[in-house]
Amino acid sequence: MKHAVTYELIKECKKTKARRGVLHTPHGDIQTPVFMPVGTQATVKAMRPEQVREMGAEIILSNTYHLYLRPGHELIREAGGLHKFMNWDRAILTDSGGFQVFSLGKLRKITEEGVRFQSHIDGSTHMLTPEKAVEIQNALGSDIMMAFDECAPYPADYKYVQNSMRRTTRWLERCKAAHRDIERQSLFGIMQGGTYKDLRKESADAIVEMDLPGYAVGGLSVGEPKELMIEVLDYCVDFLPKEKARYLMGVGSPDYLFEAVEHGIDMCDCVLPTRIARHGLAMTSHGRVNIKNSMYEKDFTTLDPECDCYTCRNYSKAYLRHLFKAEEMLSAMLLSNHNLHFLIHLMGEIRKAIEEDRFPEYKKEFYDKYGRF
Amino acid sequence: MKHAVTYELIKECKKTKARRGVLHTPHGDIQTPVFMPVGTQATVKAMRPEQVREMGAEIILSNTYHLYLRPGHELIREAGGLHKFMNWDRAILTDSGGFQVFSLGKLRKITEEGVRFQSHIDGSTHMLTPEKAVEIQNALGSDIMMAFDECAPYPADYKYVQNSMRRTTRWLERCKAAHRDIERQSLFGIMQGGTYKDLRKESADAIVEMDLPGYAVGGLSVGEPKELMIEVLDYCVDFLPKEKARYLMGVGSPDYLFEAVEHGIDMCDCVLPTRIARHGLAMTSHGRVNIKNSMYEKDFTTLDPECDCYTCRNYSKAYLRHLFKAEEMLSAMLLSNHNLHFLIHLMGEIRKAIEEDRFPEYKKEFYDKYGRF
Repeated sequence: MKHAVTYELIKECKKTKARRGVLHTPHGDIQTPVFMPVGTQATVKAMRPEQVREMGAEIILSNTYHLYLRPGHELIREAGGLHKFMNWDRAILTDSGGFQVFSLGKLRKITEEGVRFQSHIDGSTHMLTPEKAVEIQNALGSDIMMAFDECAPYPADYKYVQNSMRRTTRWLERCKAAHRDIERQSLFGIMQGGTYKDLRKESADAIVEMDLPGYAVGGLSVGEPKELMIEVLDYCVDFLPKEKARYLMGVGSPDYLFEAVEHGIDMCDCVLPTRIARHGLAMTSHGRVNIKNSMYEKDFTTLDPECDCYTCRNYSKAYLRHLFKAEEMLSAMLLSNHNLHFLIHLMGEIRKAIEEDRFPEYKKEFYDKYGRF
Repeated sequence: MKHAVTYELIKECKKTKARRGVLHTPHGDIQTPVFMPVGTQATVKAMRPEQVREMGAEIILSNTYHLYLRPGHELIREAGGLHKFMNWDRAILTDSGGFQVFSLGKLRKITEEGVRFQSHIDGSTHMLTPEKAVEIQNALGSDIMMAFDECAPYPADYKYVQNSMRRTTRWLERCKAAHRDIERQSLFGIMQGGTYKDLRKESADAIVEMDLPGYAVGGLSVGEPKELMIEVLDYCVDFLPKEKARYLMGVGSPDYLFEAVEHGIDMCDCVLPTRIARHGLAMTSHGRVNIKNSMYEKDFTTLDPECDCYTCRNYSKAYLRHLFKAEEMLSAMLLSNHNLHFLIHLMGEIRKAIEEDRFPEYKKEFYDKYGRF
């Protein structure tokens, strides 16, 4: 039986683990490394879907937890699936809901069976299990479904992380068993094990054994220092097979994207570009711009002279600042457009650099202009 | 000297006062009767300007009071004018700020000189006079500038309305004297006089004497019964010359647009379509749709089967309802798009009906489907 999603390796960087590939999915090919915009509630915030498409996005991420609670996965199934419901005809990756329910803190309780939690919307009680997470994602019809896992907090002691990781592995087996239609949707596994190398190895060996089309490195970028994140990521990737896609979840600042790619990651996602846009922050080739700053009051130049996005082609910083101060929706619309374009364009440049054997040089060039973080 | 804006009468309805014309402006021709979308703070809320243009808008309205306070008219002058600042290359009409400062209630004081008022943003004190209103609108560079007037409340006694109307006439003389560059921008006068026919006649005679390119019927749709509004509008229009444009301010529900056109009005504007959109309300050919209604929860049909707007081409009521409930910006974006398209399309159909000598028949057809209000 053929997997719905397959990874094709095109080229490897000679000096780093960076690699150039293609993810083949039922909704089109995705050039990797890729940054995936997040559309939590079946919409990339403040954007029309074709605007996301026009800037080059080939895949977006959506959230199982949110869609399960509202409008409900059965409603989306009746609508003909998430692609049709939200008017997005390219690939979609859905998370498992695990990260969100674990983030609920006191509102959730973990057992071997799964997680009992209370809705953040109306306080109603729900149970999320590996089987339920698969059932929901089957109803949504995403191209890539993520396994139901526990993302252990940082810091956490060895015993806790070991128990949690082993339960996550058992949950993955249940996810795999629950997911039957592998020609329509693909299930990705998630490696856990915190910052403990032997636990990461144990996790990797177990999930790779299950022969899934892709694997995420979970439990990183959850509060640990950047250096530690990179150190752990570096050995984690070595535990994963070359012929499968590798996904680092929740990473979206330019520096983290560079680190992820440099250490062999193919896919990243983050709410960062649209979230900071709503707070008046823009990512530019010369670093962050805080549009609220009074220095931009009469600055009639564009956000980023090197950017050719819709926002930079048509609007000045003075206008964008006015929109933000006046609390106009167009402010979030234009800054979200710019920030998403910035990261998608950046990933395009990174792919080109890998193809042309100059990824390390490109990274240095970028940092010299953008500054450290 | 040639006026910047001129009105050309093309055809008159045989059974009503409805008429088909063209307003020639420095930023293109406007087919009339026209509905003008409102972009209060230099943006039509939740819309990109070219989306407004694509649905057929040839002119938008913007507000002097708001732009004077934020970001300031001098800043917009430095930006190259309002058209360039907000990326809108078609015609713009600006009001005078009068209506807004009079709406401030206790925060303003009227004298012969003008109106002293406190900003709704920071409480700072300002003085708006006929000369200042013209100076601000000159800086904005709108194609059509409105005279600084007092819109008397309803109800108001005869003596109050008489004094107010006569002051408005004196203010119009001062506006006209202050506005010199008539080849670049045109000043429209505003008729007042409340619901008193002799005062309307006196006002009309005085402002028509000043030979301006267009006139607004002011002080209507301010709380009086609809029948009274129509009665007053009917005789007001007869006091105005046929060869000049006629503008009814602040009117935007479908029934009021029909009444306005039937009684000889060429131009209307209103925040209604975008404001109700943000509250989940859509205008459709079969009446209003409240997208919050639970009956639409699993309604996978579009808002309006007769509409070919972007929203109706791509999204279901179930999706729109989900977006509204989830408080997603795309909700306001899509409903604003639909409502603006609805009114602009409706005006297009009204123009066609006048051309084809079937305006009264078209009005009846529309009402039969849409229902009374």
